[in-house]
Amino acid sequence: MYVQLIITATAGLIALAVAALFAFEVMKADTGTAGMQSVAAAIKEGAIAFIKRQYSTIAVLALLVAVLIFAVFSFTGNTELAWHTAVAFLFGAFFSGLAGIIGMWVSVHANLRSAAAARTSLGKAVKIALRGGAVSGLTIVSLSLLGVAIIFTLLGANPQETPFVIVGFGFGASFIALFAQLGGGIYTKAADVGADLVGKVEAGIPEDDPRNPAVIADLVGDNVGDCAGRGADLFESTVAENIGAMILGVALFPIFGVNGVLFPLVAGSFGLLATIIGILSVTEKDGNNPDPMRGLNKGYYVTAFISMILFYVAVTWFLGNIWFFYAGLVGVGLSLVFVYITQYYTDSKYRPVQSIAKASVTGAATNIITGLSVAFETTGVSAIAISIALLLSYKLGEMSGVANGGLYGTAMATMGMLAPCAYILAMDTFGPIVDNAGGIVEMSGQNEETNRRIAILDSAGNTTKALTKGYAVGSAALSAFLLFNAYMTDITKLTGKAFEVVNLAQIPVFVGALLGAMLVFLFTSLAIRAVGETAQYIITEVRLQFKNPGILKGTVKPDYARCVDITTKGALKNMILPGTLVVLFPIIIGYLLKYEAMAAFLMVATIVGLLLALVLNNGGGAWDNVKKFIESGEYGGKGSEAHKAAVVGDTVGDPFKDTAGPSLHVLVKLLATITLVFAALYI
Amino acid sequence: MYVQLIITATAGLIALAVAALFAFEVMKADTGTAGMQSVAAAIKEGAIAFIKRQYSTIAVLALLVAVLIFAVFSFTGNTELAWHTAVAFLFGAFFSGLAGIIGMWVSVHANLRSAAAARTSLGKAVKIALRGGAVSGLTIVSLSLLGVAIIFTLLGANPQETPFVIVGFGFGASFIALFAQLGGGIYTKAADVGADLVGKVEAGIPEDDPRNPAVIADLVGDNVGDCAGRGADLFESTVAENIGAMILGVALFPIFGVNGVLFPLVAGSFGLLATIIGILSVTEKDGNNPDPMRGLNKGYYVTAFISMILFYVAVTWFLGNIWFFYAGLVGVGLSLVFVYITQYYTDSKYRPVQSIAKASVTGAATNIITGLSVAFETTGVSAIAISIALLLSYKLGEMSGVANGGLYGTAMATMGMLAPCAYILAMDTFGPIVDNAGGIVEMSGQNEETNRRIAILDSAGNTTKALTKGYAVGSAALSAFLLFNAYMTDITKLTGKAFEVVNLAQIPVFVGALLGAMLVFLFTSLAIRAVGETAQYIITEVRLQFKNPGILKGTVKPDYARCVDITTKGALKNMILPGTLVVLFPIIIGYLLKYEAMAAFLMVATIVGLLLALVLNNGGGAWDNVKKFIESGEYGGKGSEAHKAAVVGDTVGDPFKDTAGPSLHVLVKLLATITLVFAALYI
Repeated sequence: MYVQLIITATAGLIALAVAALFAFEVMKADTGTAGMQSVAAAIKEGAIAFIKRQYSTIAVLALLVAVLIFAVFSFTGNTELAWHTAVAFLFGAFFSGLAGIIGMWVSVHANLRSAAAARTSLGKAVKIALRGGAVSGLTIVSLSLLGVAIIFTLLGANPQETPFVIVGFGFGASFIALFAQLGGGIYTKAADVGADLVGKVEAGIPEDDPRNPAVIADLVGDNVGDCAGRGADLFESTVAENIGAMILGVALFPIFGVNGVLFPLVAGSFGLLATIIGILSVTEKDGNNPDPMRGLNKGYYVTAFISMILFYVAVTWFLGNIWFFYAGLVGVGLSLVFVYITQYYTDSKYRPVQSIAKASVTGAATNIITGLSVAFETTGVSAIAISIALLLSYKLGEMSGVANGGLYGTAMATMGMLAPCAYILAMDTFGPIVDNAGGIVEMSGQNEETNRRIAILDSAGNTTKALTKGYAVGSAALSAFLLFNAYMTDITKLTGKAFEVVNLAQIPVFVGALLGAMLVFLFTSLAIRAVGETAQYIITEVRLQFKNPGILKGTVKPDYARCVDITTKGALKNMILPGTLVVLFPIIIGYLLKYEAMAAFLMVATIVGLLLALVLNNGGGAWDNVKKFIESGEYGGKGSEAHKAAVVGDTVGDPFKDTAGPSLHVLVKLLATITLVFAALYI
Repeated sequence: MYVQLIITATAGLIALAVAALFAFEVMKADTGTAGMQSVAAAIKEGAIAFIKRQYSTIAVLALLVAVLIFAVFSFTGNTELAWHTAVAFLFGAFFSGLAGIIGMWVSVHANLRSAAAARTSLGKAVKIALRGGAVSGLTIVSLSLLGVAIIFTLLGANPQETPFVIVGFGFGASFIALFAQLGGGIYTKAADVGADLVGKVEAGIPEDDPRNPAVIADLVGDNVGDCAGRGADLFESTVAENIGAMILGVALFPIFGVNGVLFPLVAGSFGLLATIIGILSVTEKDGNNPDPMRGLNKGYYVTAFISMILFYVAVTWFLGNIWFFYAGLVGVGLSLVFVYITQYYTDSKYRPVQSIAKASVTGAATNIITGLSVAFETTGVSAIAISIALLLSYKLGEMSGVANGGLYGTAMATMGMLAPCAYILAMDTFGPIVDNAGGIVEMSGQNEETNRRIAILDSAGNTTKALTKGYAVGSAALSAFLLFNAYMTDITKLTGKAFEVVNLAQIPVFVGALLGAMLVFLFTSLAIRAVGETAQYIITEVRLQFKNPGILKGTVKPDYARCVDITTKGALKNMILPGTLVVLFPIIIGYLLKYEAMAAFLMVATIVGLLLALVLNNGGGAWDNVKKFIESGEYGGKGSEAHKAAVVGDTVGDPFKDTAGPSLHVLVKLLATITLVFAALYI
């Protein structure tokens, strides 16, 4: 038994235990008034109904893919590899689903407790929501580390071979992540758009008004999209990064032996321990600050700082080369830079949001035009930051004097960036928890002070959600290279000759690149359209219910469950086409154009996917905050022409930032694992 | 003197003579009522004022760049090459400017004549507008062929060296094209958006109403954006394609001798002759058809068919290998496929426009969401069509049995596609001419029947404009490979070792690709923002003029000239930042990351640029036609909620399809010529 696996198991189990403690702490907190409880119960019921149906659908798809994997591998003659990979795939799919479900479970309980706490103290509400988020973050990251460690232990006869089987685990994780994020993203935004268009725009009732039949579906959406979806997303991010770095470690086997292969698990485990301290460092007092973001940021800095110290320990212990530690620092630096970029582009304090707000005065068209301009602009500094991080960590890796050290330098940067991943995930889940808490407070009718506290919480939640999306893109960009390298190593193994060149100057390779870029645009189109189509069902249903005059008068309770049910069916139906496209298209193109073209397909799809994700995430985030900025009284405030324009911008931004954008991160990583798993078909 | 140069000179001079005849025919046509003449005079005055000021600005920039070129080349020690390239650059810039000015000159005269003809006959109006467009098309293409032929003759001591000097000519052409398209595009859409927002939305007066102070600026915009801009764009397309194919011909010198180098000029010359016949084949009777598009399409089919016969003659005469003819057919096929794709996505007969129209019923937000989804979707079939054309023409070229024949096959496809280019350009200029004619009729108050005819004309003009944009993207995609190859050949010459591999699996090369993709997004952002900012000046001015109540009552004539002047200044000011960015950024990145990374930069920027151009062009076109579709009485017609939503979509689409989209084609080709000219800096 390698010491690294013992470290991983220990850290993973400690993190699970702490998560259980946090869960216990959340569960025993006050559950507020009966009104609050009844709203929360409805949300919980809807979320569980969706997750049940969604995962049954996904399970069927996953079984089909497992059979496909088995068939493809058997076809290439390696039956043992065939069933190892198929089982690893199912195992990854199961763990990913589990991670998502746990995230959602905790969220639908923490929302009520956070709402209840907001009646007495902002700090208490922040703490409960963050602890709830931490349950999700710690569980997800420890499951990903434990999953990889378990497979490695079970199959670990040859540490130079095993990482290639773990690829199946990664594909399983990203397969589930795609459908979870896509289905959840369609659900959440279709419900949101549908509820807003009929409720706010047509009937003129406020957001989260209990008379709106789609309001529960909207609140359910926050959980299934943001918690279950992003949980599965970051689960597979850590898995994919671990696999990529482990395969790179195989290339360095002559130098570091098994230490190079297992280093990613150690780095992740230490990051997990750092996260626990970071979470504990955020006290009720921090949360009582008028701006709770300061408290949350403090926790992040603590986590990042301790991660770095432990990272230093890990590097000196297992690699004995200080340059790799410096490379790791580059990753931490990039994560901080991304935090600033995201804030600059989405916070109303700065020029971008203010320029969109100003443009809203002349109507919806100028709001959209300016918003799109800002959205496109965000790619500029982001791409430059990623470029510098890649080149610098590569250079630092080269300074190590180790052969292939450059690439291992970028791996270190990725690990550095992903070390505080569990904390980021906790902040991310914090978002939908407080969002839901807001809905519960609104629907159950609380006093002015509680509403004020909840508004502060809600705004902090929006910020944390935006930040984690930026972080997800940055880390995906850094880790992309590991996955390309893994694919090329795999092809080298399969063909027996070194595959080191992806020559874009060859027509078929260029065509591969073109089709990769196209897939990103086409997928975005289908994801956005799926939201529009699902929203149509909800609009029709809400209009139908509003025909009963008692509902708008507030004397008749609307049928929330029907809306939940219709949204569920619509989201699941409409996720199939884009989901299937991105699984089958690369397999077909790879089969037709062969492995070098496929590498270009993957690389250019990654570039375009990440840039477009930035456009969609930041654009959506900016539009959201433009609306809030105007609602705070600027340019005429609520009800003004500028506000109407801002509502249009916000609605356009919804499927950008919560469906298409996050699904694109997952798509990029799914493409990487698909090409890896089906590499044998491309020869 | 090579026979090919004699053919080129003959065809070029014939085309110029025919253009002169057409111009004479247009000029002697009836100029209508005094009211019409006064509107046309105002448009003409405004257009000339803009062009004068714009070209003075561009001339200064061009001189600066010429000095830069001279300095860079002198620095590398080759003074003769330095001044040859700098002079070729200025020569290209001059010809490009001339091409744009002639296009605009004819347009500001043909608009009035076409409007006057519409009083008596639709067919006559179509014929005048098409002949006017043909003046522009024939002049531009013959100038591009003659320019290359002249430089070749002057410097043609060594036919294997000369194409590399002509590169300066190409850079000059694309430099002017960028600023012409960008400045003109900003002008036209800022005026349009500004006029609409204050006139239609705030004051509630119809489009092209003479009471609107910005209405003349709007009509001027059609000329400077669509005529001068697109003229310069397609001028440089043909130049760039000729240079790329000639440099490829140098590589095939051992097989075809000078025939391979000069073949592109012959193919272009024959296409020019075919265009003359095609234009002449469109009679007044064709135009009198209730759908004038049929007549215009007939002319295109005639042109394409005769081009192909002549292409066959040229291939058998100079190359003696039938496979290259087949490869040429692929290009013609691609141009037809692009026509269908563009029509499918922008014509109200089909699903995409209808789906956006339906979504408009639920408001502006769903109109925008669905529109963006359609816009992104257009990349799908387009990219697949380009991929098939590239692979197929490459394969056919390989079948020729000639070494490097594959690449020459794609060159043939490009030549096949660009052969009827002058006709396409004539159709394109047809657009703004009839658009202007519509404005003149509207502002001078004509009878019902004339208005009906002009509406038909206007709709045909929108279709031709959309088609040519699709064509421009398709041909840019095909010719891209020639330019990559030219760059790689140039680097090989400069370094003395074969540069054949652009390995995307190297970190610096990947970073180059990432930054190339980013530049496309950033440029789009700046181009869109420039429209928004310039529109603000106009909005302020129009609101100021409306404070005089006499203007809205129609008793006081608004100050059109002030609006024209403000738009001119704004457009010129706001084109500087995006224009300078795309010239300097690639030079800096190439210098820092070196030539292989620069190749990846260029290739991936090309891929992303073309896909995003499709998104912007087709999205904008679809939104435009959604508005028209609803105005035709669907979903409640004019004044309905759906119509209001469609107006928002149309306004958002304006800078997409007329500023950012067309500028992106130019950008892609500008990047290719920049990398070629400054190749010495990247070593």
